[in-house]
Amino acid sequence: MADKARLSLNQMTTANWSAQQAVEGCLRHGIGSIALWRHKIQEAGVEVCVRLVRDAGVHVSSLCRGGMFPAPTEQQRRKNIEDNFRAADEAAALGADSLVMVVGGCGGLHLEEARKMVADGIAALVPYARERGVRLGLEPLHPMYAADRSVLNTIDQALEMASHYDAGEVGLILDAFHIWWDPRVADSIAQAAGRIYGFHACDWLNPLPDVLLGRGLMGDGVIDNRGLRLLVERAGYNGPIEVEIFNQALWDANPDTVLAQVIERFEKFV
Amino acid sequence: MADKARLSLNQMTTANWSAQQAVEGCLRHGIGSIALWRHKIQEAGVEVCVRLVRDAGVHVSSLCRGGMFPAPTEQQRRKNIEDNFRAADEAAALGADSLVMVVGGCGGLHLEEARKMVADGIAALVPYARERGVRLGLEPLHPMYAADRSVLNTIDQALEMASHYDAGEVGLILDAFHIWWDPRVADSIAQAAGRIYGFHACDWLNPLPDVLLGRGLMGDGVIDNRGLRLLVERAGYNGPIEVEIFNQALWDANPDTVLAQVIERFEKFV
Repeated sequence: MADKARLSLNQMTTANWSAQQAVEGCLRHGIGSIALWRHKIQEAGVEVCVRLVRDAGVHVSSLCRGGMFPAPTEQQRRKNIEDNFRAADEAAALGADSLVMVVGGCGGLHLEEARKMVADGIAALVPYARERGVRLGLEPLHPMYAADRSVLNTIDQALEMASHYDAGEVGLILDAFHIWWDPRVADSIAQAAGRIYGFHACDWLNPLPDVLLGRGLMGDGVIDNRGLRLLVERAGYNGPIEVEIFNQALWDANPDTVLAQVIERFEKFV
Repeated sequence: MADKARLSLNQMTTANWSAQQAVEGCLRHGIGSIALWRHKIQEAGVEVCVRLVRDAGVHVSSLCRGGMFPAPTEQQRRKNIEDNFRAADEAAALGADSLVMVVGGCGGLHLEEARKMVADGIAALVPYARERGVRLGLEPLHPMYAADRSVLNTIDQALEMASHYDAGEVGLILDAFHIWWDPRVADSIAQAAGRIYGFHACDWLNPLPDVLLGRGLMGDGVIDNRGLRLLVERAGYNGPIEVEIFNQALWDANPDTVLAQVIERFEKFV
């Protein structure tokens, strides 16, 4: 059974809450860590959020998200990298364990070209993040997001990209929803030892109700969250475990009820 | 440019047509090959379909589909294998290039357990198919179908499974929709040389409108069909290229209009 002390609320699980409401929710439910999203931080202001988590004594497991590098023009790609600099600034201010990188889809670009732009974007960001003590967590996304969200789609691929940098600078965020299907998942996680910056739990509903909002609470789908958690631990990761669930029905429900369910399912299935 | 002589109509592209209508459609549009589906064959009767394609002189590029092995009980798994024997009989009668294997999802089973059931199912089917001269084409399906349709999700994984058998008995069906995202696609296709039994073209619409019915006509999405076709040819495959598009709007359209579009897009984008 996963220790509740390791549970981190990824803010998108309670998408209707502001940053302040989410931090207060963590306090009410005894959750010690939170993953904040930039659009929520921008609503409240970075300084306010920094004070908020510091005063509450809540640990920031990650900042979501940097990335989104590919673009058809050099100018837009430069702009995207500048935005990643701001994300690194925010991650540093918040003391986040890492800046989660959702690298961007191929859109109208050729897939290989988009992947090259991602590699270039990471290369431009690493020195900036290094100076600020911010670790970049590459998150391989499920292959069904290769067109619109991320051309980084397997653990092996993310590991190859990370391997060009120091293990303390660029690592991996492993989300059960994105990796559970991979025939190489056990070997790949073992090979990622020393570079795992985060682990996310949730479930894959069957049939999948929606490409983006089809995630479920742990126990409602087909993913062996506990098995994956044990693989990640065997590879040396013992940090926070985020619960990140994009699901319209959960978003429409009372967030306090959702948090109670998250804790129950975390203890039962992770 | 792909030679129209290689175009094969996968019957699901014109899902509202019967087997007879689809064969007649191929004749009207000068399409020399067809991939038949078992539920359509059962509507018409196997003998009728065998006569139909023989009289029309239309080549059967594949029979869709065998597979669907995993099940919670031994009895049901046995029943599934028996059904695959019938599929092999039909493929033999039709003279199909191969029997396409969509192996089944994990459903309520553990993923590894389901994958073992697939390996066992293939092992039971190979001798039966061999005696009838039927080749089994393992089709890796996109990872988003691992829960409900196929626990075989990458070319590498399918190749590993096929490698236990003779290259003339068990091979691969490579569908652009399922494999385009794979960071290893070029290497994996090269490694599959000698075992490629079929290649399918279509497109991935962005954003994806539906998990099952989100496929588009070549040119309407993000897939480099020509690039994949060239990789497959470099690996030695020069057989029929099926166009297989699950798309509600296409199904609702006039199938003759759809066939004209398929030919145009095939020549332009494959």
